[in-house]
Amino acid sequence: MAAVKACNILITGANRGLGLETVKQLLENSCQKHIFATCRDPDGPKSEALRELARKHPSVITIICLDVDDPCSIKESAKKVGSLLGNNGLNLLVNNAAIVARGTIHTSRVEDMKNTFNTNVIGPLLIIREYQPYLQTAAKASRTPGMSCNKAAVINISSVAGSMTRNPTFCTGFNTLPFMYAGFNMLTVLAAEELKADEILCMALHPGWVKTELGGEKAPLEPKESVEGMLRVIGSLTEKQHGGFLDYTGETIPW
Amino acid sequence: MAAVKACNILITGANRGLGLETVKQLLENSCQKHIFATCRDPDGPKSEALRELARKHPSVITIICLDVDDPCSIKESAKKVGSLLGNNGLNLLVNNAAIVARGTIHTSRVEDMKNTFNTNVIGPLLIIREYQPYLQTAAKASRTPGMSCNKAAVINISSVAGSMTRNPTFCTGFNTLPFMYAGFNMLTVLAAEELKADEILCMALHPGWVKTELGGEKAPLEPKESVEGMLRVIGSLTEKQHGGFLDYTGETIPW
Ligand SMILES: NC(=O)c1ccc[n+]([C@@H]2O[C@H](COP(=O)([O-])OP(=O)(O)OC[C@H]3O[C@@H](n4cnc5c(N)ncnc54)[C@H](OP(=O)(O)O)[C@@H]3O)[C@@H](O)[C@H]2O)c1
Ligand SMILES: NC(=O)c1ccc[n+]([C@@H]2O[C@H](COP(=O)([O-])OP(=O)(O)OC[C@H]3O[C@@H](n4cnc5c(N)ncnc54)[C@H](OP(=O)(O)O)[C@@H]3O)[C@@H](O)[C@H]2O)c1
Repeated sequence: MAAVKACNILITGANRGLGLETVKQLLENSCQKHIFATCRDPDGPKSEALRELARKHPSVITIICLDVDDPCSIKESAKKVGSLLGNNGLNLLVNNAAIVARGTIHTSRVEDMKNTFNTNVIGPLLIIREYQPYLQTAAKASRTPGMSCNKAAVINISSVAGSMTRNPTFCTGFNTLPFMYAGFNMLTVLAAEELKADEILCMALHPGWVKTELGGEKAPLEPKESVEGMLRVIGSLTEKQHGGFLDYTGETIPW
Repeated sequence: MAAVKACNILITGANRGLGLETVKQLLENSCQKHIFATCRDPDGPKSEALRELARKHPSVITIICLDVDDPCSIKESAKKVGSLLGNNGLNLLVNNAAIVARGTIHTSRVEDMKNTFNTNVIGPLLIIREYQPYLQTAAKASRTPGMSCNKAAVINISSVAGSMTRNPTFCTGFNTLPFMYAGFNMLTVLAAEELKADEILCMALHPGWVKTELGGEKAPLEPKESVEGMLRVIGSLTEKQHGGFLDYTGETIPW
């Protein structure tokens, strides 16, 4: 099985849900690596499980404060991470944090729609902007040609709900979420274009419908299965998947 | 040539650019119709040309204040238009108003990105929400089966820059606009799903690259040519184009 061997990994929303499960599974893999597990409230009650994990693996996990909805926090986190990374740069950036605005266009509040756009589209955009230099450093430091997540990569955790051609069968009731995922998917397309010259891989990944706070109780998948699948996919990526959209089983999703 | 024979037409951003040109060309067509030409500042200097037009055609044009960026203004406009429409409902709604955020993701200000999303995606979403009852009235009042712009239709003026599969060749330098157009295109897809049951046509239309304030000096097309093409396309729409994406020549654009 292809494994994620990236040395320096950063993940957003790492304190619960799929983000936390990703940190856990990355730890199981014996490769030498460092994980920047970021969350918006490192000292709060929702980050207890992550803090516990970091206490057990102090040499592997560094918890970093990063509020995806706050441009200053993104900048601050990049400064901090940059000072810790040294000359190796950042190999793998996982844009995982997201919120959902419940309701349909008839019931959603305008404020909620705006917040969702800020967190789910502008946030990852600013993160890519701030962390791009570290990804470039990693890509340059690597002596292997081509693209891989072990060299330098941006993985955007998106949703099939953002697929223009697949979506209508997924979201009934004119839910407002697909707008955000569509904008986010466009970020993947554009960022892939921008990062290509530096051989930084960039793609979007759909985790499946998973039992988390976001996915809800009715979801058929456990976080364990979804993240196992996603890490298998991430570990096997090459330039062939650059700018693409896959699900956790490795199947291509049409935009 | 297929002509737009819709009785009651509403267009946003009707005071200049493609919106104003659309009002002008609709006037040339001899059919009996009423145009709700909306703009955010009916008394301001930027609406002088529209006021002049309305003075010449007082029985055809009603200028309505509608700021796409302001949910209250959208609601107010719908109340006003609703009271003027009577029992016939609204046949054609053209979401034309938009702004552009200049610059790339490296240079764009976060505020500009947010504003663009509010005006170009949330605005049209709220407009569809508020005007849906009048479109339903028009669809019900019509005795022709199927879909057409003369019965009830929403036309979203979008851009090929929002196409996931076409975009990269159009926007270089990681411009932030495609996010908005991608979200806006998703609105078309979802709204089409929602409006289908009432036989209200909904589709996205790319005007070409046109010499307006938004398009800039270098654009190859004149507003006259673009709008002539768009009105030809709009006039010929049937349920076959429902939920689709065409350009001003009638060519299909892939999402
Ligand atoms: N679960 C599914 O079925 C499903 C389906 C499709 C796509 N996805 C995608 O998968 C990703 C992970 O979702 P999940 O199911 O794990 O959701 P989740 O359990 O609700 O977790 C969301 C995570 O995002 C974090 N977050 C939210 N806003 C943040 C902000 N402003 N700054 C920093 N972190 C923030 C949360 O932190 P707090 O604890 O501070 O709130 C939390 O760690 C998301 O991108 C989601 O869109 C999930
Ligand atoms: N021109 C092109 O090359 C091109 C290419 C692709 C797509 N498009 C699309 O075509 C449509 C028309 O563009 P255009 O070229 O005619 O642009 P334009 O000349 O810049 O005109 C934009 C219009 O939108 C209005 N507007 C902006 N913000 C508004 C708000 N908050 N409330 C109400 N009205 C508002 C403007 O009114 P004010 O006078 O008050 O600012 C103006 O009437 C847009 O949807 C654009 O995205 C144009």
